[in-house]
Amino acid sequence: MENRKGYHVAVVGATGAVGEKMLSTLERRNFPISKLTLLSSERSAGKKITFKGEEHIVQAAKPESFEGVDVALFSAGGAVSKQLAPEAAKRGAIVIDNTSAFRMDPEVPLVVPEVNDADLHQHKGIIANPNCSTIQMVVALEPIRKAFGLKKVIVSTYQAVSGAGAMAIKEMLDQTQAVLNEEPFTPEILPCGSDKKHYQIAFNAIPQIDKFQENGFTFEEMKMINETKKIMHMPHLQVAATCVRIPVVYGHSESVYIEVEKDGVSVQDIKDVLSGAEGVVLEDKPEEQIYPMAINAAGKLETFVGRIRKDLDNDKGFHMWIVSDNLLKGAAWNSVQIAERLISLGILK
Amino acid sequence: MENRKGYHVAVVGATGAVGEKMLSTLERRNFPISKLTLLSSERSAGKKITFKGEEHIVQAAKPESFEGVDVALFSAGGAVSKQLAPEAAKRGAIVIDNTSAFRMDPEVPLVVPEVNDADLHQHKGIIANPNCSTIQMVVALEPIRKAFGLKKVIVSTYQAVSGAGAMAIKEMLDQTQAVLNEEPFTPEILPCGSDKKHYQIAFNAIPQIDKFQENGFTFEEMKMINETKKIMHMPHLQVAATCVRIPVVYGHSESVYIEVEKDGVSVQDIKDVLSGAEGVVLEDKPEEQIYPMAINAAGKLETFVGRIRKDLDNDKGFHMWIVSDNLLKGAAWNSVQIAERLISLGILK
Repeated sequence: MENRKGYHVAVVGATGAVGEKMLSTLERRNFPISKLTLLSSERSAGKKITFKGEEHIVQAAKPESFEGVDVALFSAGGAVSKQLAPEAAKRGAIVIDNTSAFRMDPEVPLVVPEVNDADLHQHKGIIANPNCSTIQMVVALEPIRKAFGLKKVIVSTYQAVSGAGAMAIKEMLDQTQAVLNEEPFTPEILPCGSDKKHYQIAFNAIPQIDKFQENGFTFEEMKMINETKKIMHMPHLQVAATCVRIPVVYGHSESVYIEVEKDGVSVQDIKDVLSGAEGVVLEDKPEEQIYPMAINAAGKLETFVGRIRKDLDNDKGFHMWIVSDNLLKGAAWNSVQIAERLISLGILK
Repeated sequence: MENRKGYHVAVVGATGAVGEKMLSTLERRNFPISKLTLLSSERSAGKKITFKGEEHIVQAAKPESFEGVDVALFSAGGAVSKQLAPEAAKRGAIVIDNTSAFRMDPEVPLVVPEVNDADLHQHKGIIANPNCSTIQMVVALEPIRKAFGLKKVIVSTYQAVSGAGAMAIKEMLDQTQAVLNEEPFTPEILPCGSDKKHYQIAFNAIPQIDKFQENGFTFEEMKMINETKKIMHMPHLQVAATCVRIPVVYGHSESVYIEVEKDGVSVQDIKDVLSGAEGVVLEDKPEEQIYPMAINAAGKLETFVGRIRKDLDNDKGFHMWIVSDNLLKGAAWNSVQIAERLISLGILK
């Protein structure tokens, strides 16, 4: 294998909340880049972005933009991915797509490197990055599954507004200031930009993320349910989710109840397994008030797990609290980590 | 029975967050009061409070304060209740105690009027008002239990800072402004005033309410577990709770998973039962984005229920979202409602 100096990397959606984090993560990880192509919609084309001290001009993405590209990180919405990801793949790029466009496509691997990096070998040009709230949960659950089996998962989320994009962050901060000043304001984005009604997020909790499906679950909830089964290769795993937006900027928190298969597992057994697990940081000392919190996870790459307790009625039941930066492990870092893994597994040569 | 014009009511802790709401609820309900005695700690004694246009001076609470009192509403902390509630009862008052001091005492009824008002007949001078997060949950669960039986409850809470008192509200609002201004601040109260470490609540989620027990659950979580069993008269009900503080001022939200006993229950069956239930307002039209939210529940007396879905794996499993004003139904209103019920049941004559 030729030892390459670097790869031609394209970032699609470079000016968005996740795109920005992708660039800073590529910098932070010192990802081997020989050429960087920054792409966006027509609207954002022409903007200038500095990467490693060098100025780049963002170009409008089109099929030809991907000529010669080795890896294309997509995060510009599902419609852009559906149109341009196949074009990029056709031109020889490996696409790592952060949208939901291809996640449930049986031909497309849906990958969290700590869980199922072997699936990368099956790629046909496109690899999907899972939903933010799913990623951090499976990072914590996979080591438990490996050791003790996993039968059931019930999760309630406490999700940060950054998951709805840069404009949603601005809406929440402006709205919060308006509430503090007792000034009027009009919600325009949250809970879901493309849905009809918009509600106050400042000092509130909104039990809607993405639109509703016929079955009463939201798309976000169904993503957590379906993606978890696909990533963990457990079509029969019982998963239920309630997804809630709360006034936090960065960092999703999750209250998770699980049932393992094995008898007689202790809290210490779970802690032992998690404390050595890739990508997991155990923060669980209730006697010292140590547990994961969104403000501490913000800016970090790991998934933080704490508040691990055995259910008081079910010997196989456990409760825990899982927190991670939704824009990093939940999006940008998982994408860059997939790219790194493609290199270390010899898939990207 | 003599038709009385009114009762001598004492409010202990009249200057606190809950005490204030007790007074406004007594006003709002036009509770029949012949004499009002406002009591507090030595520290707050001398303060003036206007009730129905009349000024009252708050007095330091002592055993003799309860001479001639018919109903005493206590909300000045567990230590005050432990000391003075028996003194009030000894003097013939019926105590309705909002602290946790007597809740699990087998001699003391723990009452949510919609659920177990018959227990009021067993009182021996003291009646306990349950924990805020417990009350709203059992209001929603009791009609379901009656119709379909109830086997299991798993709840994750999204609790407002007002549950930690007036100073906690101020801390959160000041802290939020400091974060927006990028100014420094020092957390001093939350998550729990009497615990060692204090954390930022602004734009954060803290998975600790009250202190930790040996078993890894917090006292708040154990309150939800134990009080639910006592109020519903179901010692063998399986209940698990994860209690979380979020940056909301008024209104606790709860993501609740339940399993009923009966086969073949539909979401519509649950809705039918709840829409006619005392104290419950069904807010559940996902197709119109109608679901309960803390900011809408604030200031209301009812418990709001929505997002009712059948579990995708368990035919007896249901998910729902329960919201209520933690200072009203969760504290002041439930206490005043108990007093009203004591009259309508002929217990308070």
